[in-house]
Amino acid sequence: MSQSQPFDPIDPPSVDLIIQGGIILTMVEGSRPVEQGCVRIGAGRILSVDQGEIRPAGLKTLDARNGIILPGLVNAHTHTAMTLFRGFADDLPLTLWLFEKIFPAEARFLNPETVYWGTLLGCLEMIASGTTCVSDGYFFQDAAMEAFMKSGLRALVAQGVIDFPAPGIERPEENLLMGRSFLERWAGSSRRVTPGLFCHSPVTCSEKTLRGAMEISREFGVPLQTHLSETTAEVEELVSRTKERPVFYLDHIGVLGDDLIGAHGIHLDEDEIRLLADRGARLVHVPESNMKLASGTARVQDLLDAGVRVGLGTDGCASNNNLDLLEEMDTAAKAAKLFGGDPTHLGAEATLRMATVGGASVLGLDEDIGTLEPGKRADLIVVDVNQPHLQPLYNPYSTLVYSATGADVRHAVVNGKVLMEDRRFTTLDPDEIMSRVNSIAEPIRGG
Amino acid sequence: MSQSQPFDPIDPPSVDLIIQGGIILTMVEGSRPVEQGCVRIGAGRILSVDQGEIRPAGLKTLDARNGIILPGLVNAHTHTAMTLFRGFADDLPLTLWLFEKIFPAEARFLNPETVYWGTLLGCLEMIASGTTCVSDGYFFQDAAMEAFMKSGLRALVAQGVIDFPAPGIERPEENLLMGRSFLERWAGSSRRVTPGLFCHSPVTCSEKTLRGAMEISREFGVPLQTHLSETTAEVEELVSRTKERPVFYLDHIGVLGDDLIGAHGIHLDEDEIRLLADRGARLVHVPESNMKLASGTARVQDLLDAGVRVGLGTDGCASNNNLDLLEEMDTAAKAAKLFGGDPTHLGAEATLRMATVGGASVLGLDEDIGTLEPGKRADLIVVDVNQPHLQPLYNPYSTLVYSATGADVRHAVVNGKVLMEDRRFTTLDPDEIMSRVNSIAEPIRGG
Repeated sequence: MSQSQPFDPIDPPSVDLIIQGGIILTMVEGSRPVEQGCVRIGAGRILSVDQGEIRPAGLKTLDARNGIILPGLVNAHTHTAMTLFRGFADDLPLTLWLFEKIFPAEARFLNPETVYWGTLLGCLEMIASGTTCVSDGYFFQDAAMEAFMKSGLRALVAQGVIDFPAPGIERPEENLLMGRSFLERWAGSSRRVTPGLFCHSPVTCSEKTLRGAMEISREFGVPLQTHLSETTAEVEELVSRTKERPVFYLDHIGVLGDDLIGAHGIHLDEDEIRLLADRGARLVHVPESNMKLASGTARVQDLLDAGVRVGLGTDGCASNNNLDLLEEMDTAAKAAKLFGGDPTHLGAEATLRMATVGGASVLGLDEDIGTLEPGKRADLIVVDVNQPHLQPLYNPYSTLVYSATGADVRHAVVNGKVLMEDRRFTTLDPDEIMSRVNSIAEPIRGG
Repeated sequence: MSQSQPFDPIDPPSVDLIIQGGIILTMVEGSRPVEQGCVRIGAGRILSVDQGEIRPAGLKTLDARNGIILPGLVNAHTHTAMTLFRGFADDLPLTLWLFEKIFPAEARFLNPETVYWGTLLGCLEMIASGTTCVSDGYFFQDAAMEAFMKSGLRALVAQGVIDFPAPGIERPEENLLMGRSFLERWAGSSRRVTPGLFCHSPVTCSEKTLRGAMEISREFGVPLQTHLSETTAEVEELVSRTKERPVFYLDHIGVLGDDLIGAHGIHLDEDEIRLLADRGARLVHVPESNMKLASGTARVQDLLDAGVRVGLGTDGCASNNNLDLLEEMDTAAKAAKLFGGDPTHLGAEATLRMATVGGASVLGLDEDIGTLEPGKRADLIVVDVNQPHLQPLYNPYSTLVYSATGADVRHAVVNGKVLMEDRRFTTLDPDEIMSRVNSIAEPIRGG
C-alpha cells in the first residue's frame, strides 16, 4: 500500500478535522482494530491514525464514541440516476421488464435535467448509507458530472456507449465521437470527480466500438467499464456470433487488460477466471440485482481465490432497489456461503475488504483511498453501534456486515470534507431534491 | 377473514387512538392501497379503516403523513435471547460453530437472568424494526415470558424440548414434565403472550418425546414447533434411522397436523410438500440464516403454490445476525427469484403477505392479527417513506420489500398500545437493556 504523496516531514499540513472516540478499522491487510481511535485530517488527507484522544482547541471534531471508524464504502457499479425508476417495475420477466418498462421509460423521461436530479437523489442516499466513492455509468453524463461535483462524493462518471439508439444517443454511429468529447470536456477538471466511458456490453457494442472505446480510454488514461456475462442468453449470443466465450473474445480483440472493469461476471468458466486474473482485469460483484433479476450469482470466492481484483456494487435502483452497500455486503457474504455450500466463504472481513479497498483497487484509486493510512485521501465514515440491533459488539467486521444497515451511518467525510454529520447533510438539500424527483416521477407514474 | 369479536353495533368501543395521513395496506386479499388513510382504534382493536381525516379532540393521534400504515410484521421463528451471541462466532464450519462455539457458550452463560435481558434486547430490536408478533423458541422460557410481557409485544413463547442436556434441562428424561409444567404455569395468563412447546428437531427428539410433546400441546390447545429438514445431514440421519423422510415420519407417528409448525423446511421433496399441504401443516421460511450457514434455501414458491401455509422468520441472532424482517423480506424475495430462475417468483406483495397474514396464520392467530380490518387486534406499524432511499414511491409493496429496512419504521402499536412513537420506546429502556447485555457479554467475549 503506497502513499501517494508522503508529507513534507518539516512542514506537514495543519490539522483541520479530528474524528475520535471509536474503534478504527483501517482495512490495511493484517491490521487489528484500534480501540479509542483518533484520526487527524488536514488538507483533505489523513495525517495520522492512532489510539488516543486529542483535546483540540477550536478544531472541527466529529464524535465517534460508540462508533466504528472505517474507510468510506466504494460502490463500484451503479447507474445512479435510475433512482428515478426505483420500484417502478418489479417482479416481471426479464425481457418484459427491460423492453416494455425500463427502456421505454428511459427513452421518454431521461434528459439532462432528470438525470441531474435522479443522480442527486442517489448521492443523498449513498452519503446517508456510507458510500463515499461511486462508479457511475449511464447516459447524459454531463448532468451526472455536475451532480457529483455538487454532492461532494468521489466518483468515476462514465458516459454510456452502445450501438443502439439510447437516451441522448440518437445516432449510435457517433457514439465514440460523443465519448471522446465527454472525456475532453471533463478530463483534468477534478481529481475527485473524473470522467470515463462505459461500453454497455460485448453483445450490444460491436468489436469496433469496444476497441474504439478502449483506445480513447487509454489515450485519456481512464479505465473502461462494461457489463460482462450477466445472463446466459447474452453469453450464448456472443459465443454463437464470435465462437469465443466473452472473456476470451475481449482478450482477442485487445480490450481485456488491467484497465477494463467488468460488472456482474456471473457466467464465467474456469478458463475465463484464470484469464481475468492473468490480465489483471477487474470485476464488480453485484449480488442483489443478480438475485432480483434471477440472473445467477458470481463465483466471488473463486474469483478472489484466483487473484482477480473484485469490488462490490449495487447496480441501479430499478433492479435492487436501493444503493445501500451495508445491506449489499450482508447479501454478498450470505449468498457466497450458500452457493459455495460452505459457511467459511466470504467472511465478514473479506466482504468489508471487497467494499472498501477492493472497490478502490477496481477503480484504480487504491493509491488514494480504500484504507485509513497517513497520506491517503480522507474518505471515511463512522457507524453508530450504540443501538439495540448492533449490540453486543464482539467483532466489528461481523457487526458491520451482518447486522448493520446504511441507516446506522452517523458521519461521512470525503476528501476531508464533512458531507454528513449526525445524519444531517451538508452539501445537499434533501427536501428540494426529493420534491424535484417527485415532480419528475409524476408522469412516469402515469405511464 | 373472520372477525374474532364483532362489535356491539349499539354500543361500540370508544376510540382511544387514531393513526392517520398515510397510505394504508390492509393486506386483505384483493384489497387496494388506501390513500390518506385513517385507522381508528379502541379497546385494543381496530374500529375502522378508511380514507379521510379526523380532527380528534383530545384523542391520542399518531402522525402517519408521508408514511405507509400496515399490519405489524410477524417473526414466525426466532430464538430471541440469542441476541446475546450476535456476532460472537461467524464464518465458521457448521459443526465447529455449533459444537465448539454456540453450544458451549449457551451451556456456560445462559440462565434465567441472561435469557431475560437477551430477550429484552431482542424485543427492543423487533419493536424498532416493525415486528409486533414473535414466535420464540428457546430455553429458560419463564424468563422470556416475563420479558415479552414487559415489552408489550405479542408472542408465542415456546419452551425447548430436547433429548440431550441443554440449558436449564439437566435431566432430559424430565423434558416433558418440564414442558407440561411450563404450560400449566402460563396457560390462560394472557391473550397477548401465550406459552407453547418447541421440540428441537425430529433428530434430537425421540419418537416418544415428539409424540408426548404433541399430546401435551393438544391438551393445552397450543401449536407445537420444531425445526424441520434444515440440513441434508439431519435428513440423512433420520432416513437412515427410520427409513422415512422427515415429513412422512412425523405423519406416521401422529405429529404432523395443522397444529405443527416446522421451521426451515429446506430439504423437502415433492411428496413431502404435498403431504404438508394435505395435513394443513405450517412452515416458517428462514432464508438469511439458511444462507449464512450454507444450509440451502426452502422452495418457498413451490410451497406456496402447493397451498402450504408459510410465514417468515429471522432465526436467532447467532446466524442472521439481526431480527430485521424488512431486510429478511428483501432477501426472501430475491433468493426465491434466483433459486426459481424466475424474477416473477415471490413478488413484493406476496412477500409482505408472508410476513404479515402468512405468519399470523402459521401461528394460528389469523383471527386476531395479520390484516387491518375492523374487529381485529390493533397491531400495526407506520413506515416513514419521506427519505431519499424510499423515493419516489410507485408501489408501496415494492418500497417496503425491496428498499426499506427496519430503521424506517416510525411508530409501532400492539393491542392498541403504542410501543414506539417517532422511534422512542414507551415500554422499554434501551440504555438500561444495552448496559445489562453488555455486562453479560463481557465474560462471553473473554471466551
